Amino acid sequence: MSDQQVKVLIVCSQTNLDLTQYVDYYHIGVERGCLALLNHKLSIDLACGDFDSLSPAEYQTVIKNTNKLVKVSAIKNEIDAELAITEALALQPTEIILITQGPRVDMQLASFGFIAQYNVKWLNDDNYCYLLKPHQVNVVAPQLGYRYLSLISLTPAKVNITKMKYNVQDFELTTLSANAISNEFIYDQPGEIEVLSGTVIVIYTK
Amino acid sequence: MSDQQVKVLIVCSQTNLDLTQYVDYYHIGVERGCLALLNHKLSIDLACGDFDSLSPAEYQTVIKNTNKLVKVSAIKNEIDAELAITEALALQPTEIILITQGPRVDMQLASFGFIAQYNVKWLNDDNYCYLLKPHQVNVVAPQLGYRYLSLISLTPAKVNITKMKYNVQDFELTTLSANAISNEFIYDQPGEIEVLSGTVIVIYTK
Repeated sequence: MSDQQVKVLIVCSQTNLDLTQYVDYYHIGVERGCLALLNHKLSIDLACGDFDSLSPAEYQTVIKNTNKLVKVSAIKNEIDAELAITEALALQPTEIILITQGPRVDMQLASFGFIAQYNVKWLNDDNYCYLLKPHQVNVVAPQLGYRYLSLISLTPAKVNITKMKYNVQDFELTTLSANAISNEFIYDQPGEIEVLSGTVIVIYTK
Repeated sequence: MSDQQVKVLIVCSQTNLDLTQYVDYYHIGVERGCLALLNHKLSIDLACGDFDSLSPAEYQTVIKNTNKLVKVSAIKNEIDAELAITEALALQPTEIILITQGPRVDMQLASFGFIAQYNVKWLNDDNYCYLLKPHQVNVVAPQLGYRYLSLISLTPAKVNITKMKYNVQDFELTTLSANAISNEFIYDQPGEIEVLSGTVIVIYTK
């Protein structure tokens, strides 16, 4: 892995995703995400968090198996995932994948916000989300296991959608509007989304 | 229940919440949420959806037990929950509670957007969210079963937080920022959140 081509995987929780596909990434484990990396027989290049969610035995396992440890105070303004992203950005990576999972809406919204803020790709067991490039046509290929494709905007936005089941021109999205949800691919053909204005995130979901 | 005091409960999915506390609300069932209302021995005042997620037998049960049916096309721009909210708003209610549940991030974000757009309170098994009143002090009381209190803003915003574990003055939030997450109450004492500017949503979570 050359420094010029580093890609980063940040794992913040247990997951049913197959992490072995990211074997050539730089692996950052956050809290229990460290255990997820070890469970998938992946190295921990950096362990990050306050580790208060780990038992003493689990914590010992993590520190024995990590190349680098960044231990932070439990009292902090930012959440652990954001600290991990900051560490990742210092590597000037070509790609950051963030895996977070769980029922807390506040954590999910924060992860979603990181997509626009840091251009990370956010994955969990049921969703795959990333930022569309503005002022150009984005080709969206079907992904195995995902049925729907939804657009959510974090600002007022305008898009063209073509080659999908539901197609629109000069379509306006307001912040978090629900009117571009549950689109579908036509068989296995890629669709096209042109972002005319605004901050638009694509969500593949099951 | 007088027309002047109508409160609306919209149930869009199965839930572990105790719905019987909303017995005096006007009950709107959306898709499988109709079955959730019946399971809790509550009436269905209005059933709403395309009903393609119900078996023929389940659909028959719903239409036999509802006072009003609004059946919509499966091909539509809005999601069912938003159509239910539109029906609810026509009743000029003093309160709308929306219950949605599930792993789809797009649906969750849309539900979250409805909080700001329509001033609904959004609940599911793990979270309770509502819009804070701008330009005033909002008292936030501890709620049984919830440990954390988080603030998420849909716009640039500024807040004061007092009488909580972590307190701040003139604190700036950007859209979906993660820097006002996981606050906690001091014992059972209410906290105070003054919204100086912006659209700020409070999230109680477990």
